[in-house]
Amino acid sequence: MKKIRIAILGLGTVGGGVYRLLEMRKAEMPKRAGVEIEVAKILVRNIEKAAKKADRSLLTNDWQEIIGDDSISVIIEVMGGMEPAGTYIMEALKAGRHVVSANKDLIAVRGRELLMTAKENHCDFLFEASVAGGIPILRPLKQCLAGNEISDVMGIVNGTTNFILTKMTDENMEFDEALAVATELGYAEADPTADVEGYDAARKVAIMASIAFHSRVTFNDVYTEGISRISAKDIKYARELGCDIKLLGVAKNTPDGIEARVHPMLIPCSHPLASVKDAFNAVFVHGDAVDDAMFYGRGAGEMPTASAVVGDVIDILRNMEWGSSGRIGCSCYRDLPIKEIGDIESKYFMRLHAEDRPGVLATIAAVFGNNGVSIAKLIQKNTQDGFAEIVIVTDSVRERHFQDAMAVLEGMSVIRKISRIIRVL
Amino acid sequence: MKKIRIAILGLGTVGGGVYRLLEMRKAEMPKRAGVEIEVAKILVRNIEKAAKKADRSLLTNDWQEIIGDDSISVIIEVMGGMEPAGTYIMEALKAGRHVVSANKDLIAVRGRELLMTAKENHCDFLFEASVAGGIPILRPLKQCLAGNEISDVMGIVNGTTNFILTKMTDENMEFDEALAVATELGYAEADPTADVEGYDAARKVAIMASIAFHSRVTFNDVYTEGISRISAKDIKYARELGCDIKLLGVAKNTPDGIEARVHPMLIPCSHPLASVKDAFNAVFVHGDAVDDAMFYGRGAGEMPTASAVVGDVIDILRNMEWGSSGRIGCSCYRDLPIKEIGDIESKYFMRLHAEDRPGVLATIAAVFGNNGVSIAKLIQKNTQDGFAEIVIVTDSVRERHFQDAMAVLEGMSVIRKISRIIRVL
Repeated sequence: MKKIRIAILGLGTVGGGVYRLLEMRKAEMPKRAGVEIEVAKILVRNIEKAAKKADRSLLTNDWQEIIGDDSISVIIEVMGGMEPAGTYIMEALKAGRHVVSANKDLIAVRGRELLMTAKENHCDFLFEASVAGGIPILRPLKQCLAGNEISDVMGIVNGTTNFILTKMTDENMEFDEALAVATELGYAEADPTADVEGYDAARKVAIMASIAFHSRVTFNDVYTEGISRISAKDIKYARELGCDIKLLGVAKNTPDGIEARVHPMLIPCSHPLASVKDAFNAVFVHGDAVDDAMFYGRGAGEMPTASAVVGDVIDILRNMEWGSSGRIGCSCYRDLPIKEIGDIESKYFMRLHAEDRPGVLATIAAVFGNNGVSIAKLIQKNTQDGFAEIVIVTDSVRERHFQDAMAVLEGMSVIRKISRIIRVL
Repeated sequence: MKKIRIAILGLGTVGGGVYRLLEMRKAEMPKRAGVEIEVAKILVRNIEKAAKKADRSLLTNDWQEIIGDDSISVIIEVMGGMEPAGTYIMEALKAGRHVVSANKDLIAVRGRELLMTAKENHCDFLFEASVAGGIPILRPLKQCLAGNEISDVMGIVNGTTNFILTKMTDENMEFDEALAVATELGYAEADPTADVEGYDAARKVAIMASIAFHSRVTFNDVYTEGISRISAKDIKYARELGCDIKLLGVAKNTPDGIEARVHPMLIPCSHPLASVKDAFNAVFVHGDAVDDAMFYGRGAGEMPTASAVVGDVIDILRNMEWGSSGRIGCSCYRDLPIKEIGDIESKYFMRLHAEDRPGVLATIAAVFGNNGVSIAKLIQKNTQDGFAEIVIVTDSVRERHFQDAMAVLEGMSVIRKISRIIRVL
């Protein structure tokens, strides 16, 4: 039986999991994929350190040893980061190697180029693990749901922020405290910026939107707001309105263009996404035929991510066996415009402090009315030092008009402070 | 560009949806699948009736017109039932046609034979729509999760019974009343037996288990209990224990063999499956790498089912284009034994009426103890006419031992009646 030689680039958390899972499934591979497999080389920075995780004879810190070895036909890139991963993948594809990658940073920016290079060289370039870890989402979009016109892809695609928001909700913590817990438990990195500011989620939204809408969306196209300014009070008030606050990645295909955005959002406690707790991820899809569907599971971690990578490897092996490498490549055959954030429509939740005297509410309501914003709820909370805290929920309105109203309110002497604005599903 | 001619067998609810969706996506097909498509023929029983749904020139009631037409290369079977569907599919595969089917009745019994015939004739035989309607589940198991050893597949895979149980739970209805509502709304058929007795779910369990565990499980292997004896009182008591009652399809791969069963079950209200309401379906999967994953959506209906069928059609078209027809066929390379229901382990909830006098509880407890069944909870509910209603929840125990205890209790003069036994997750 044919034996396929595989190289892994990187032996960190994900790389270690991929190596382990490939070894665990080695005996089954002939039955599942029709070929034998062998991990031939692993590229690492520090051979001494890596020797604790894998047989030293497999380890190299020299990329040329891998790219120069024609007997290696599948390369798994799990190093992360833009470079040198980008160069390595491009070189691998140009040399006719099939590539699996979990690198959302790279794919959200250079996806088209990588897929085109794969196509030119009749290679597979697969990246199921780049979005939502172990949860099958890209392949279902490209295959199972391929008969649909997908209008919405929306999800909780960052486990770190979902863990933090769950802690804040269930244990009434403030953001800093919940972040500290997440860091201690290893859910947050030393520099948590990419997670808490929504950049990580934005990369996943770019990749999912590109596939769902058949039109390329890149990281820079995604409007991004993080959760670092969400307070325990916001969550408490949201709860009083029957809502949870989640960091959502939202992509919509509308007649005026694609919306792609990541921001905190109030969602009804009864919504299936509200029950997604801790570090779990979930992606909600709406298609014209399938209606609503949801995919739920572990969005990160050593073995769940390895599950997605090895699924891709098996697909590559099957394609090699059937002579159909490159069978499903780039599916972006449209070129749709990206909508500006000002043009989206949303409901809004806001908290502000205003002077506690007759006529002030009427003045605020007039500002909203003049800008075409209709108020669905207005609740006066506690009063202190002559200022009242007011919570307002609007009906659906174009963001631009809502922001115009905010600009006027901010300039008014009766308003002390607009404390928070959060979009509502 | 090549044009692929397609025939549809059946123009009922699903057939009508498939025809409509293929027409809706006709213009996009060259971009999505690399070929043009044309619905060439539709097999119907009554041409007059069918002419309301599709162009009369496409309709035929003569199977020979389809199987004899060599220009038709893809056949979609959405008639349902064992025959003549089984004969038609076998003839189609033997004639080298690729087949998509939504026919769970047939596949749960003759799956191996159909897949083997497809293989011998280098054809695709795909049936994503046969399980959980529009929800992608079979392809994710065969591809995305192919790197896992799957130990559990468990789900709500019958919308009719889930609708009935939801009504019983949320509106405190009895079974008959909820069934009447389901019938009126079109969720239940005139003869609801296959749904309410769990046969429909059992077929889906057989198909999912076969794929997940790589070992053939057929309809007859699945132990089946329906929901027709569940009462509003059972649901009320379950709620008091923090649980909902759901009809679950359960498949487990254990060291002693495969468990495949469908029965009502108490599940904690906090479990993700508990939030699956009305006619929605959801399938929970546990794999050694991916950990827990869940797939949620519409398990039936015209367009959701059509979504799954057309996804399969696109896969067939891609395989035809790449010369890789039959790329993923039968994946049952193991021959694992099926466990008897007496050998499964479960917790149990039960209600019984016993004489209300000192010593009776001790006697009951002794019967459990003598059979190795340990009691987790024992709650005495209301008393009437000298008899007390008692609710018991056991710890996990082998079903055989629990049934032995039941046999003893049933023969005791102090027990008037064992009203209900329901397994607990």
